[in-house]
Amino acid sequence: MPETDRQPVIILTRPQMGENIGAAARAMLNFGLTEMRLVAPRDGWPNPKAVAMASGAAGQVLDRARVFPTLAAAMEGISYAFATTARGRELTKPVFTPATAAARNREEAASGGRCAFIFGPERAGLENDDIARANAILTVPVNPDFPSLNLAQAVLLTGYELSRGALPDQPMPTQRRPANEVPADRVEIEKLADHYETRLEDAGYFFPETKSPSMKLNLRNLWSRMPLTRADVQVLHGLLRQLTRR
Amino acid sequence: MPETDRQPVIILTRPQMGENIGAAARAMLNFGLTEMRLVAPRDGWPNPKAVAMASGAAGQVLDRARVFPTLAAAMEGISYAFATTARGRELTKPVFTPATAAARNREEAASGGRCAFIFGPERAGLENDDIARANAILTVPVNPDFPSLNLAQAVLLTGYELSRGALPDQPMPTQRRPANEVPADRVEIEKLADHYETRLEDAGYFFPETKSPSMKLNLRNLWSRMPLTRADVQVLHGLLRQLTRR
Repeated sequence: MPETDRQPVIILTRPQMGENIGAAARAMLNFGLTEMRLVAPRDGWPNPKAVAMASGAAGQVLDRARVFPTLAAAMEGISYAFATTARGRELTKPVFTPATAAARNREEAASGGRCAFIFGPERAGLENDDIARANAILTVPVNPDFPSLNLAQAVLLTGYELSRGALPDQPMPTQRRPANEVPADRVEIEKLADHYETRLEDAGYFFPETKSPSMKLNLRNLWSRMPLTRADVQVLHGLLRQLTRR
Repeated sequence: MPETDRQPVIILTRPQMGENIGAAARAMLNFGLTEMRLVAPRDGWPNPKAVAMASGAAGQVLDRARVFPTLAAAMEGISYAFATTARGRELTKPVFTPATAAARNREEAASGGRCAFIFGPERAGLENDDIARANAILTVPVNPDFPSLNLAQAVLLTGYELSRGALPDQPMPTQRRPANEVPADRVEIEKLADHYETRLEDAGYFFPETKSPSMKLNLRNLWSRMPLTRADVQVLHGLLRQLTRR
């Protein structure tokens, strides 16, 4: 199957355990990434343990993964490569966060290029010889006293950022609401406040007299700042009617 | 040990396998989160399998985790709670992405409150009865055709966003460079370009004559756009000298 043009490529360099390759495939597919390349997997390829761990991601990711003998060979068609590592300090190279790398990936794709994200073997990580083949370093900012990300987690955070950056900005949360639930309009809120005020007045709630105006104001403000739906307003009317029936 | 004020709390509701509690503890500590609360863990508490999986995170997270019989009880001291779920569509509640939830968490902490992030049991996730106790829903935007995040991965992405948002904006990657490697200045680049141009001229590289100006321009531009250090420039001078020694 041809690789999807422009989609970034995940390169696992000398991965050791099949389970980790499978888990990385799952992490990729969680964020819609399907282009995996493997450099000299320790236990050969295909690997049944990878398939078992990948479960639903086996078909879309593992079955079409390409295997290469060296990292240099795996760079085919890649215009910009990130080496994912917390090390490489002795090499002069720009260091990206996942967020800035995702932005760089979008630029690269927009200008007709294609990015690769290179991950090292589980235990030892990428060697300097690998890192020297990349354009830049990608480092996930973790707690320096406990930087214990495993391979699939590093792939997961990278995939998350790649799809996160593709989402439109979402400054305000969306309100998830069944189709029959629409927000109450201000007149309905006003009538609700009136209803409560009247019944509470009847019940002698606004006491003493001198505090009555501020008590009423606070109560009205309370209703106003609640994000009530039309249905909520009906419920609040209903329970008040019920409470004051006797 | 007293909980750290203002730090968001991770609540695991009816977690099943100790290994997953341990993996969640690791994911938390990766991003500096240490406040875990457990609601009715299936296999009791403490759980040796959780400790084994948490390894380095056992002391800072698991040993101080607090256990509660119900989610309601576990909300002690929490002013704003997110239910982490892809469901709950029948409930009217604001839906946050991890990014907007992290921003909300900062606001809440700044105004003296404290947020909780509630995660459900591994297999079934949070029930509507749990979700109804939260102020809002947090949904990680994953591939709808493969939304297979496990508990520790959901905690990892939440922790990542909480610490990501606390970082200053980083529009440009930082250049990681040993102290003795400083960028070459433009005069050094100019001299390097001159050196190459002279030797290539001697070698008859700029041919035919009519193309010579554009070839020289392209070559000079090549050196100019490389992010060369002073040491790189020395290397490039040295190899040219060596190549033209004979």
